[in-house]
Amino acid sequence: MRLRNVKNKEQIMESSNYLIDNPEDYLGNWKSVFGNFNPIYIEIGMGKGNFIIENAKRYKEINFIGIEKYDSVVARALEKCNNEDLPNLRIIRMDALNIENVFSEEIDIIFLNFSDPWPKKRHIGRRLTSKLFLDRYDKLFASIKEIHQKTDNRSLFEYSIESLNANDYKIEKISLDLHNSEITDNIMTEYEEKFMKDNKIIYYLIAKK
Amino acid sequence: MRLRNVKNKEQIMESSNYLIDNPEDYLGNWKSVFGNFNPIYIEIGMGKGNFIIENAKRYKEINFIGIEKYDSVVARALEKCNNEDLPNLRIIRMDALNIENVFSEEIDIIFLNFSDPWPKKRHIGRRLTSKLFLDRYDKLFASIKEIHQKTDNRSLFEYSIESLNANDYKIEKISLDLHNSEITDNIMTEYEEKFMKDNKIIYYLIAKK
Repeated sequence: MRLRNVKNKEQIMESSNYLIDNPEDYLGNWKSVFGNFNPIYIEIGMGKGNFIIENAKRYKEINFIGIEKYDSVVARALEKCNNEDLPNLRIIRMDALNIENVFSEEIDIIFLNFSDPWPKKRHIGRRLTSKLFLDRYDKLFASIKEIHQKTDNRSLFEYSIESLNANDYKIEKISLDLHNSEITDNIMTEYEEKFMKDNKIIYYLIAKK
Repeated sequence: MRLRNVKNKEQIMESSNYLIDNPEDYLGNWKSVFGNFNPIYIEIGMGKGNFIIENAKRYKEINFIGIEKYDSVVARALEKCNNEDLPNLRIIRMDALNIENVFSEEIDIIFLNFSDPWPKKRHIGRRLTSKLFLDRYDKLFASIKEIHQKTDNRSLFEYSIESLNANDYKIEKISLDLHNSEITDNIMTEYEEKFMKDNKIIYYLIAKK
């Protein structure tokens, strides 16, 4: 997600207790950041943070980390959580390509919400459910590997099902129309709220290996 | 698929060279029926037979067997193929529950097209992608187990993905809108032609184990 430049973004980022400046320092040691042994769930590409912040509010016994590449988007998310008291939430500004240098055998769930579909064949490796990324994630997980994906992009979702299965993930739960399903505890992203108003189909899955 | 009673169905069935009256007699020996060692693909619930007959016309080096429970529907399919010269096609009238007594280690692909969704929880075992049926199919396949499914029923398709994965099938190909996909060799069933006119989404997958 790109955003218009946020003018005071440096100031927002410097003053936030949620932002982790040097995430590589905590490789394999994120339990110490939170000061407890609760599970850690991460969202790669959190956008403006609605999903991860709402999760942190709702599930206090779980630690959440939102990851986002773009400064201005991170700043928007920080503005939201700076008003909250959420000791179970942290934010990292980084490219997902760097994820192996930040986490090691300590993540329980990865959320991929409305990821860039990278429609061109030559960009397949950039899709967050490509073999390249799934191999990276292997090193992040504590034990059972669990990925939750939501998207409005049919091609990305079809690709993800095939790629997850090819890489030994099993789809344990799937909805081909999340907003018209029996799933009632869905927390929406900013994109999703917009798509819902446009009556777009949202696809959803939980995969494990 | 049920149909109005077809008046002369007994006569149609008796006079057809395509109908196999005593399929249990060929258990493990269907190559002998066709007189060759070509692969054998079966369709469970062929309806009026459009899909399996068109396949038999198009792919002469593959043997096809259409299976259907209801007399009147079988009679309609036989009327169609009685006008054709298709040595690579046979039709069986039987309940899918009986399938283990008819085939043994000799099937290459199973087609499940627009199967009854059996929406009630207590009928899950009747769905043709339930564990009960997948276990039965295990004994039918020659080597690689391959299932091709098409349906317009979202709940059945979601259920099938979960059930196939839970039973160690991998989804190698999936389309969440078959008629708006890059797949160009699709052969339609009677149902499917009707659904296409109504602009209904058709789901499609190929699963293997």
